[in-house]
Parts: sequence; structure tokens; C-alpha cells
Amino acid sequence: MQLAMIGDKLIEASKLDSAYLDFGTFFGDGVYEVLRSYNGKLFALEEHMARFKRSLDEIEIEGVDVDDIQRKVISTWQKTGFANAKIYFHITRGAGVRDHAAEGLTPRFFLIVSELEEATEQKKNGITVMTVPDLRWKRCDIKSLNLLPNVLAKRTAHRNGCDEAIFVDDNGFTTEGSSSAFFAIFGDKLRTSPLAVNILPSVTRLFVMKIYKNAGLELVEKQTRVEEAQKADELFIAVSSKDIVPVVKFNGIEIADGKPGKYTKRLMEEFKKLIK
Amino acid sequence: MQLAMIGDKLIEASKLDSAYLDFGTFFGDGVYEVLRSYNGKLFALEEHMARFKRSLDEIEIEGVDVDDIQRKVISTWQKTGFANAKIYFHITRGAGVRDHAAEGLTPRFFLIVSELEEATEQKKNGITVMTVPDLRWKRCDIKSLNLLPNVLAKRTAHRNGCDEAIFVDDNGFTTEGSSSAFFAIFGDKLRTSPLAVNILPSVTRLFVMKIYKNAGLELVEKQTRVEEAQKADELFIAVSSKDIVPVVKFNGIEIADGKPGKYTKRLMEEFKKLIK
Repeated sequence: MQLAMIGDKLIEASKLDSAYLDFGTFFGDGVYEVLRSYNGKLFALEEHMARFKRSLDEIEIEGVDVDDIQRKVISTWQKTGFANAKIYFHITRGAGVRDHAAEGLTPRFFLIVSELEEATEQKKNGITVMTVPDLRWKRCDIKSLNLLPNVLAKRTAHRNGCDEAIFVDDNGFTTEGSSSAFFAIFGDKLRTSPLAVNILPSVTRLFVMKIYKNAGLELVEKQTRVEEAQKADELFIAVSSKDIVPVVKFNGIEIADGKPGKYTKRLMEEFKKLIK
Repeated sequence: MQLAMIGDKLIEASKLDSAYLDFGTFFGDGVYEVLRSYNGKLFALEEHMARFKRSLDEIEIEGVDVDDIQRKVISTWQKTGFANAKIYFHITRGAGVRDHAAEGLTPRFFLIVSELEEATEQKKNGITVMTVPDLRWKRCDIKSLNLLPNVLAKRTAHRNGCDEAIFVDDNGFTTEGSSSAFFAIFGDKLRTSPLAVNILPSVTRLFVMKIYKNAGLELVEKQTRVEEAQKADELFIAVSSKDIVPVVKFNGIEIADGKPGKYTKRLMEEFKKLIK
């Protein structure tokens, strides 16, 4: 007899809900997506599904019907009736006896749809950020469930009265936020990290790429040094649940006049056109 | 109404088993231990509990009574009656709405005891290993649930007909195995990576430190280059479930005569004395 314990409760291993033997928990062996709807319309579903498929491929989880996942996302969201919904889903390699290299598992799908609370205040007044060392693994381009460094970074930020943590690599360059992409504006130059193995290919970034010209900006894909960032004219983060959010304080230093910048506001306006 | 889906099954979020909202799954936000018993006696329980406590402290999971966990480990193991048991347990930060920096969660404990299959064949004939780039995060001294790079490494090893993957850092130095510590012997010098943020403080390593002198070895805490390792007189790994396991092939190259080496065998003999 194999025995397990959940909290204080003894249970025969054979009677465990398979969630307790999920490789997502044992190893973080899975990938996920978060997307949202705006006013009754799913935003960037195709882009999220494409990234999801890539993540699955990169960690070699096979046999997942991504079109079927897409149908499940749509139908479950529709059933909730939430006009502005936050949709989280993941696939893990499966469940079973804990074994790093187990074969023949059945991938497990989990999805949850909740009503999204709009970040109205943050978008209007901006947020504060602080930098933390980028301790993450070397494949942050994969949207995996290995997010402990992100959790620790965000917790550090909150403990220091900041809303978000911005990772800084060993060479002093900002990479991205703990759960967001990071952008700086110098004059009319929009700067963000080039996509590489240390950067998650942000879906919101993809849409910023489509609108920056309309906002009067030029793009420079280049990492920004910490000393540069604190002297930027404007800073903002991009995240699927809130799209563009101005950053008004960086490591305790006010950015320009400490208010959301004009280009950032223009980008937010341009973004609104995309979600109509 | 918040809606969730598990596989094909729709379920109201309020009716989900909290395992589905565990931060262990969402973020790998938890720490674990694996220990074993030998012939009806738990081995190195104190050392495992000390490391577990350190891991909890490092990721700031608070309010866990480690003595209580220890009692649960002992009592559950005793109930199974397994003389040679493998005991896995973890604590995650808690369960709830997915939020990187959620506060006030109740840590969740999970434990499973199974009968251990002795690695008799591997210990007798040795195993084969191959090197893979060390893509892990920069705090591998914490025994956390973020193990995707370890999973991918071990899968690569198996796909290439090897039993274990040995991580190699950016400078060409071996660090440790995907689920083991790594040792090389040159002459009568025993060499292993010094404990640092890129090395898990292996409990078996701790016991190797107590017996190497009896085996006639001297210790050098130093990382071994890939080119050095393949010319070593002997290689072995150390892992709690199997203690010392000889390595007879490294990146396809036979180590010495391709058989477990004399010092490794002596260490295995010395280790047997510890578990009596």
C-alpha cells in the first residue's frame, strides 16, 4: 500500500485526485497562457494560441490538439457571460508516479475564466517599479510554469511598495518585468529588449509593434541599462490583462514629471482602437 | 460565476479541489524533499528536515511547523510498513486566486510514501551520463519545485540512451546532475563542485564527506571541466534514493576500463556502514 498525506489527512495513494500527482506541481512541467476579452470580444486569441503551441513544442509535450484547446477556451468563456474576462489555461505533461523522465503520460488541461478587474487606477496614474536581479532560467522565451523567480521578484517589489519588479541581467541591462514586458521612451524613440531566449515573446508587445508608428514613435529593439531607464522620458509595461500601463517611478526615482508620458498615453489611445 | 475546466469537464470554480489552485502548480512556488529508509530505518531525516527548513526560509514560506512535518513523515512511513521506502514531500505557498504576490495563503503539505525499488543493477554495473547546458535558474541551492530544466535534461539523456544528464555551466565546468550530485576521482583525489548558489546541498554529498577519508581519498572542492571529467579515473553520482552510483560512460567515452572504479566501490562499502 502506498500512502499519501494531504495536509493532515492520510489517504491511500490510489485514491488521490490525480491533480496531486500532476507533473505541473512536481516539476512545473507545463506551459500556460493568460488572455482576456474586452467588451465581449476575445483579444488576440490566435496569437496566444500560436505562442501556446510553440511553448508546448519547445518542452516536447506531444499529442495536444491546440484547436480543441481553442474551442474549449471560447466555449467556456462564452458560458461565463463575462464581457471582460481573464482566461488562464495550462497544459502539463501529465500525472503519475514522480519521475523526471516519465514517458507515455497523458497531457492534462486546466482552464479558469474569471471576471477581470480593470486596472483603471494604474492605467490612469501609472505604477512604480523597482529592479531585481534576473535569476530566471535561460529559456524565458518559453511560457512555462517555472515561475518561482518571478514570484519572488514580485513579492520583493510589493514589500518595497512597488507594483512590479523589472529584471536586470548580469550586465546591468533590464530584460523584462516579473509578469510584463518593459518599454522605455527616449525622445521619440521607443526602446524594448529584442526577443531572445531571455525574453518572453509578449503578445501585447506584438500589438505595440503595430501601433507605435501611429503614436509618432520610432522603434529601437535594444536593452536599456538601469542608469538609462531612470533617466528615460517615459516608461511603461505591457501585460495581456491590462495592455499598456505607464510607469511613473523607477527605483524610487520619478520618471520625467512623475506622470504618465504623452507617447505612452498616445499608445494607450491607439491600443483602444485595436480592441474595438 | 467563475468557470473552470479540467480536461473536458466543466466545473464551477468554487467546486474545484484546491489542488487545482495550488501555487505549486501555477508557479512552482514550493519546496520539497526526497528521502528514504534502509531496512526499516529512516536515513538522514534530520539532514533532510534541516535542508527543507532552509528552502522554506529562502523562498519565505512562513508559518510551517517543521517538527510537525517531521512527525508526519515518520508516522506515515511507519504506517506503510515499507522497510525500504521512498518518501517525497513538499510544501507550497498555498492555494487561491492566481496572483504572483498573493498574501495570507495557508501553506499546503503533500507527502507520498512508496516502496523503493533498489537500483541494484545500476550500482553494480554503473550508469552512463551525458552533459547538457545548465539552463537552470541562479538559486539551485534551493530545493524548489521549479524543475523543468532538470526534466528536459533528463529527457534528453534518456533519448540519447543515457541514464543521467550532467549540467555544464557557461564556462565549461560541470555543476551537478539533473537529479544527483556529481563526483570525479583523479588518482586519490575526490573532486566535486563546491557548494554555491548553483549547487543543491546534496544530503548524500554530506555523508560522502564523512567517509572519503576511510576510503583512502583526499577531497578537492572544485568544479571539473568536461574535458577533465572524460579523462577521470572514476566518476560517480550521489542521490538520496540510491546513495552512490558509479558512472562508467561520460559523453560516450568509457571511464578508465568502463567498470565501476575501486575508490567508488570503497565509498559504497563505507556508505553501507552508515546505513546499518
